[in-house]
Amino acid sequence: MDRKAKGTYAERELIHLLWQRGWFSIRAAGSGSTKYPSPDLVSGNGLRRLAIECKSSADDRRYITKQQIEELALFAKKFNAEPWIAFRHNADWYFISLEDLKDTGKSFFLSEELARIRGLSIDEIAGGKIQENATV
Amino acid sequence: MDRKAKGTYAERELIHLLWQRGWFSIRAAGSGSTKYPSPDLVSGNGLRRLAIECKSSADDRRYITKQQIEELALFAKKFNAEPWIAFRHNADWYFISLEDLKDTGKSFFLSEELARIRGLSIDEIAGGKIQENATV
Repeated sequence: MDRKAKGTYAERELIHLLWQRGWFSIRAAGSGSTKYPSPDLVSGNGLRRLAIECKSSADDRRYITKQQIEELALFAKKFNAEPWIAFRHNADWYFISLEDLKDTGKSFFLSEELARIRGLSIDEIAGGKIQENATV
Repeated sequence: MDRKAKGTYAERELIHLLWQRGWFSIRAAGSGSTKYPSPDLVSGNGLRRLAIECKSSADDRRYITKQQIEELALFAKKFNAEPWIAFRHNADWYFISLEDLKDTGKSFFLSEELARIRGLSIDEIAGGKIQENATV
């Protein structure tokens, strides 16, 4: 798989994990390729909403531009949602708040160490009982 | 254009119209082809959120299944959003509430006449000053 296909695969995996926990979730079409800013995923459980940017350890670029972070924060604000970076490493997902990203001046940096130390697990973020066959 | 391409074209047009009016909006990837229910678009302006199912007059099927309506209503509830059917006819968009759809027993029916009489315009739904070059 090329880099884009790996990203899509990871996003679909996360969508599935969220649905299993009772979160209604959609993947944005053309995220990163349209003229309008967009998170990769949005998710809601009736009480909370999440705006999620996905990064996987297959990404060679772990730097996230300030513009991307600002757009994620603004998008989340417009949806009354929580902005999160979801980082996939060794088949685990870590949810990192924007405040916990390392500011390098021009951009923000995301490391595996930071994800392990500061990140929340999907169960900490999305909780809930897991349904094996998630349907409505 | 085939039917699917026309639908995508119409959805992109509506995304643009919403952005012009200050609504942050995304199009769902694979809407209608994934195992999970999903509206075509979600949109937010900081105060309100919309979950939108798009229909265009190119659609030969104006019947909407009860399941589709129920899923849209449930999705909207999980996002604390308003569910709307957006119907495109003669280059105009009409926003129709689920209560205004005609119940035929097994499904709901959407006619151009119903859209004209009961539908709201995009300015009635999304208001706001139009920005010619919508950016963040």
